[in-house]
Amino acid sequence: MSLETHFSDRLVARIQQIESRLVVGIDPRLDRLPAEISADDPEQALSRLGEGVIEAVAQHAAAVKPQVAFFERHGWRGWRALETVCAAAARAGIPVILDAKRGDIGSTAEAYAEALLGDEPGTLGCHVDALTVNPYLGSDSLEPFLVRVRDHGKGIFVLARTSNPGGAEFQCRDDDAVPIFEQVARSAERWGQDSLGECGFHGVGLVVGATYPDDITRVRQAAPGSILLIPGVGAQGGSIEDLAAAFDDSGLGAVVNSSRGIVQAFEQDPERPWQEMVQEAARDKQLALQGVSSAG
Amino acid sequence: MSLETHFSDRLVARIQQIESRLVVGIDPRLDRLPAEISADDPEQALSRLGEGVIEAVAQHAAAVKPQVAFFERHGWRGWRALETVCAAAARAGIPVILDAKRGDIGSTAEAYAEALLGDEPGTLGCHVDALTVNPYLGSDSLEPFLVRVRDHGKGIFVLARTSNPGGAEFQCRDDDAVPIFEQVARSAERWGQDSLGECGFHGVGLVVGATYPDDITRVRQAAPGSILLIPGVGAQGGSIEDLAAAFDDSGLGAVVNSSRGIVQAFEQDPERPWQEMVQEAARDKQLALQGVSSAG
Repeated sequence: MSLETHFSDRLVARIQQIESRLVVGIDPRLDRLPAEISADDPEQALSRLGEGVIEAVAQHAAAVKPQVAFFERHGWRGWRALETVCAAAARAGIPVILDAKRGDIGSTAEAYAEALLGDEPGTLGCHVDALTVNPYLGSDSLEPFLVRVRDHGKGIFVLARTSNPGGAEFQCRDDDAVPIFEQVARSAERWGQDSLGECGFHGVGLVVGATYPDDITRVRQAAPGSILLIPGVGAQGGSIEDLAAAFDDSGLGAVVNSSRGIVQAFEQDPERPWQEMVQEAARDKQLALQGVSSAG
Repeated sequence: MSLETHFSDRLVARIQQIESRLVVGIDPRLDRLPAEISADDPEQALSRLGEGVIEAVAQHAAAVKPQVAFFERHGWRGWRALETVCAAAARAGIPVILDAKRGDIGSTAEAYAEALLGDEPGTLGCHVDALTVNPYLGSDSLEPFLVRVRDHGKGIFVLARTSNPGGAEFQCRDDDAVPIFEQVARSAERWGQDSLGECGFHGVGLVVGATYPDDITRVRQAAPGSILLIPGVGAQGGSIEDLAAAFDDSGLGAVVNSSRGIVQAFEQDPERPWQEMVQEAARDKQLALQGVSSAG
């Protein structure tokens, strides 16, 4: 993967090349494996599932988003599987958005940036294009990640408005003149100015749940240069129709995540080859998202 | 480690038994190792440093706090070293506060709780007593961790007011009627009611930086039952004298973290045995903290 270019330009090029705004979330669970994959060896099971999903969605996913928790769940062997899966995606030319939601300060934030967005052999960062981060600790806590965005062509997606029912509790309080999520979005627009790509977007994206369409509009207005990463479509209740405000009139500006709806698609028909089912689910979602743009 | 008891009771018993309110943060860096430990094999270096620190501080630390980032920094081998270090602390009978600052939603939060506060063999959780967590995603995002606090004798420390210069940006905004960090503290008092120990404290602690003494007072008032975990003394500029408000008149209610000041203490005299230097630094800090209480 070339890091000479801005992350935003690489992602937008990929979106246009395969005509997909779909991010496939990889959240592997050992209790929900295809019959062909045994859970006896957790590391091998996680690796085989992840690699199989990547192969199946290679022409349909603008990016893949491995969820670190489901690998961490299996200790160091899970971490080794995570490295295998991220490397497989990188080899297939699919951008990797690592969903780790890290956030810390000072030398600890620097260590996370080295670990997950760096380029040292033996670290995950070599295979990762972008990382999800948590803004609660403030601008200075994000600086080590922003250095990788500005100078090394990496991207981050900052949590703004999350898709869960309790997301408003701190992010969007009734009495706040400016809710925190909107302040985060405004800040992201500022943080991103040094990584503006030729595509018109920068490397500091934002996570905004599909479950709160009005807040997508507010985030879009506060951060016109951020690429939005939108979870919460499907199982969590968000609908594709409600996402128009996230996109510009060329249909750019956001990617939409689907995890279980794709990775677990094989459960619908155990008689058919599992990767075929995953591929079909990804293609269906890819096509459904092709119609979405702010031009209606 | 017995999980029949509440985390707060185990921690308070340990504080009283060895007369220490000190938490030793384990943030190992391969570029700052004692001469006796080679950096050639990162996993072995991290393990040997961590185990050596644990041995040196065993009579001086109320708890140890391994910082996950410094292990993640070295990929899956780093994770295996982290498991070695946490297991060594558990074997030595020292409570382990895992500093991971995790925060996510739904099944992902559940996976983190299983990974880091669970009891399944092969996971870190078996060796961990308490975990630092990020509240940005709201109450429901913490529920999987709170189950472990209520039902399995584990603890969490929720980020409230962090010690970094930018901590106020979202946690403590000028125009907010109730700053977020204070709302988090009030919430923690509510979240903790089901895990109230005989010691009078519950299992939902709070992280509050030593660098903002006035805010320690506000957190203490908002969450009288929370044990406070206080970083930021020393290198970051906080002083022990400013911490009195964190403690009750018996000198209970808080633990104070020191990382580099102890783990890197050997750098002050390369001629002496490194563990002896670490032990001395821990004992000095332990003694300095014995005088602190709200009784003045």
